[in-house]
Amino acid sequence: MIQNTLLTWKGDMEFETELNGHQLIIDASPEVGGHNRGPRPKALMLTALAGCTGMDVISILGKMKIVPEEFNVSVDGHLTEEHPKYYELMHIIYEFKGDDLPIDKLKKAIELSQDKYCGVSALYKKAIKLTYEIKLL
Amino acid sequence: MIQNTLLTWKGDMEFETELNGHQLIIDASPEVGGHNRGPRPKALMLTALAGCTGMDVISILGKMKIVPEEFNVSVDGHLTEEHPKYYELMHIIYEFKGDDLPIDKLKKAIELSQDKYCGVSALYKKAIKLTYEIKLL
Repeated sequence: MIQNTLLTWKGDMEFETELNGHQLIIDASPEVGGHNRGPRPKALMLTALAGCTGMDVISILGKMKIVPEEFNVSVDGHLTEEHPKYYELMHIIYEFKGDDLPIDKLKKAIELSQDKYCGVSALYKKAIKLTYEIKLL
Repeated sequence: MIQNTLLTWKGDMEFETELNGHQLIIDASPEVGGHNRGPRPKALMLTALAGCTGMDVISILGKMKIVPEEFNVSVDGHLTEEHPKYYELMHIIYEFKGDDLPIDKLKKAIELSQDKYCGVSALYKKAIKLTYEIKLL
């Protein structure tokens, strides 16, 4: 299957696209000629990873009849110093809040996402180091 | 430098984040339990690439005093058939419209982005095949 994104230049550093029917503006910071009318593109790589594995985990937990009170997915991306500046390490923190959450099942859901389902992780892991941890709030 | 994204679960398959001060909702399609309140996460990988290289190219062309009338960046992502479903090939199409655009300089700007500046390309190229072409409208 082929998926597509089409960005249209709007002037200066601003680009516009429509993804699954939702408008998305990408822009640079004023320091490099942008107007911050939208997020920076590179950081969307981290959002893609957090969203992909977050959806896997909450979906797998739902099938196990486990519903956390709160659930956050945080991704730190460590950039290289030299051009091209890319994330050479990404670290995911899965944060759960809830009474009597079974840690073994949380771990199982995360492992299934990381090893079997998350196509964003699968690509990044071929290129860079990807680590994760679980935090109970 | 470390950059971060934090996604907060909003129920079902919906997650919310704030990137550079802009709210972004990620959601799944109704077929897998979502409500399409925002784009799918994986496709953001393509938007990240298009935005990163698009900003490079328009910025480099600006320094060369070249301003196209129109400029679009399209990225096709070819997904694997089996889980984990990831983009095994990405193809970028740089579309330019304008009178007497110097093709050699357009090519130069794209090469600089692909070889030197675009940190999204740099990571993807370590993992998968990345190709591109130029179209004059």
